Amino acid sequence: MPDAPNTPAAKPGSRLRKLGLVLPKPPTPLGPYVEVNQVGSLLFLSGTLPIVDGKLAFTGRLGENLSTEQGREAARLAALNALALVQEHLGDLDRVKKLVKLTVLMVTTAQFLEQVTVSDGASNVFVPLFGPELGHVRVVVGVQSLPVGAPVLVETIFEVG
Amino acid sequence: MPDAPNTPAAKPGSRLRKLGLVLPKPPTPLGPYVEVNQVGSLLFLSGTLPIVDGKLAFTGRLGENLSTEQGREAARLAALNALALVQEHLGDLDRVKKLVKLTVLMVTTAQFLEQVTVSDGASNVFVPLFGPELGHVRVVVGVQSLPVGAPVLVETIFEVG
Amino acid sequence: MPDAPNTPAAKPGSRLRKLGLVLPKPPTPLGPYVEVNQVGSLLFLSGTLPIVDGKLAFTGRLGENLSTEQGREAARLAALNALALVQEHLGDLDRVKKLVKLTVLMVTTAQFLEQVTVSDGASNVFVPLFGPELGHVRVVVGVQSLPVGAPVLVETIFEVG
Repeated sequence: MPDAPNTPAAKPGSRLRKLGLVLPKPPTPLGPYVEVNQVGSLLFLSGTLPIVDGKLAFTGRLGENLSTEQGREAARLAALNALALVQEHLGDLDRVKKLVKLTVLMVTTAQFLEQVTVSDGASNVFVPLFGPELGHVRVVVGVQSLPVGAPVLVETIFEVG
Repeated sequence: MPDAPNTPAAKPGSRLRKLGLVLPKPPTPLGPYVEVNQVGSLLFLSGTLPIVDGKLAFTGRLGENLSTEQGREAARLAALNALALVQEHLGDLDRVKKLVKLTVLMVTTAQFLEQVTVSDGASNVFVPLFGPELGHVRVVVGVQSLPVGAPVLVETIFEVG
Repeated sequence: MPDAPNTPAAKPGSRLRKLGLVLPKPPTPLGPYVEVNQVGSLLFLSGTLPIVDGKLAFTGRLGENLSTEQGREAARLAALNALALVQEHLGDLDRVKKLVKLTVLMVTTAQFLEQVTVSDGASNVFVPLFGPELGHVRVVVGVQSLPVGAPVLVETIFEVG
């Protein structure tokens, strides 16, 4: 009998395959910076956006022209772009121990109140891969604007095993 | 003669007791994440809010329906919630060496100018515990919105001794 | 023949001198915090502002009363203030291995779209010093307000060699 996706012994790469998750093409820098930087066991990533096939899947502002559900999907896509960068950098997601910290930045109106639901779209990408016993801390912020009109940006720090 | 609260030899836990600071009940996650994550000697925390007895003590926007003094008190409460998480995670604050980095995020109007004063409400919780010789770096930002309508969020990274 | 500024063997301090870059007087804290904090090989800095001769070179909002080019210059100045802090803390920039992570926060209108260009003003300070082979990751955010009316704040984490 195969391991269930959330068996502690399973590794992130094999969990990804069992979940049938297909990662996008990893994003490339928009300026003179790099997408991934390792110091000791910490892997710092540049902010990732909800990009599919090289284009933003959403633009705009939550509470104005984007729904909470669209924000949640944007957060999911930004999280997949982060995973694509890690896989490209390490060659194999199995070398990742866990996501340490997730920051979800989203463009909102002054009245928007669904920041937590939107952020769950990103967290829900990571939890099945690393298991609930290796969870991430999270910071969630509603901002004024993000690069190239993106509604959501995901900032991540991983631990390499 | 007992040690003064800011004697270098005193430890954070005993300083806390001498200051008579009572920590709130530690907050619990609002989604699929964890509140504390340790990698090596770094302790990363999720964002903490000005919560007292399980409820937000303030909601709103600085410069609109909240005064600078209320923001300062909100920052103080958010900082106490962070300490409560550290104490819960480590069992004892004496195992903390120092606060490494504090980020204070606050919901403001476009015209608000008292970000530094508000942030001091959080810094002033930590300085007497770790001593001025073990200070923290600080980043201060005025944002558009924060989770569940909170006016202030405190983001912290501690060093474990 | 002397090393070109981007020769891998050149060190940041000598590259700085070859580039003729003059660092400003390092900023001092606006509250009870410190400007630099080292944990292991990581050097965390407080947010730095576009300060020249002890005063903000710009105030305001990008897309409103500040142009993209002014924002880019503000980001450059904030980055130089970060380098001044590192040099003051370490005594010599040659002890820095690289900039690990750069976060550029800027006050914008809701419609502003030139966040990347503004941020390049900060990245372009660091790339010639550490070389393109030791790049930094980057997070870019448009915010509502920053301390003391500054339009740009730069947040940095360096690695000490």
